[in-house]
Amino acid sequence: MDTMGRHVISELWGCDFDKLNDMEFIEKTFVDAALKSGAEIREVAFHKFAPQGVSGVVIISESHLTIHSFPEHGYASIDVYTCGHLDPTIAADYIAEALGAQTRETIELPRGMGPIEIKQAKAL
Amino acid sequence: MDTMGRHVISELWGCDFDKLNDMEFIEKTFVDAALKSGAEIREVAFHKFAPQGVSGVVIISESHLTIHSFPEHGYASIDVYTCGHLDPTIAADYIAEALGAQTRETIELPRGMGPIEIKQAKAL
Repeated sequence: MDTMGRHVISELWGCDFDKLNDMEFIEKTFVDAALKSGAEIREVAFHKFAPQGVSGVVIISESHLTIHSFPEHGYASIDVYTCGHLDPTIAADYIAEALGAQTRETIELPRGMGPIEIKQAKAL
Repeated sequence: MDTMGRHVISELWGCDFDKLNDMEFIEKTFVDAALKSGAEIREVAFHKFAPQGVSGVVIISESHLTIHSFPEHGYASIDVYTCGHLDPTIAADYIAEALGAQTRETIELPRGMGPIEIKQAKAL
């Protein structure tokens, strides 16, 4: 399998408190995001923190999607890393919209290609 | 909980084929790496691919550690992301040594602080 991958890192701010604190909603959102991007899901593991916050991962054949949510700050830290021909921005965009992010900063890193360089940075 | 975190991204090359293909070894290495860095483990999920390769995650209270290994290329793609006062380089260094990486490129990104900027890049 080719080592080349694309790793999208998104900082989502101004998200909806209740969504960021709803583990079932987040898990479903991440599974849907993976499927929409054409990924094959292998493992799903999410954890709810007290008093608030959710962390979780969807491991796909093509790498992974992760989230750490901080409802009290309206903040979610998102990673979508895909190998092969998948486009990680499809899942990242879907997740940002689902969580109601008001502002979003995204960078994309190449993985498995040698030197790590930021490919693009954008603030939405 | 504070949103600030440190995300270490390591590209490990020249790793040992057998170690990169040994899911039990990798899982134990990642659990040990998390514990050595002082993290609290919440979820552990690893997957073995056919004919080779391992993907997995350790979700910690302070964020996550992930790996995607490509034994046939001697390559492992590592992320160690910690919030709070943990030092992600402790786990990243431990993992690189355990997998027998001959060369290693690492960058560190701040998370949850606003703009994403590469804090440091080093090739070992």
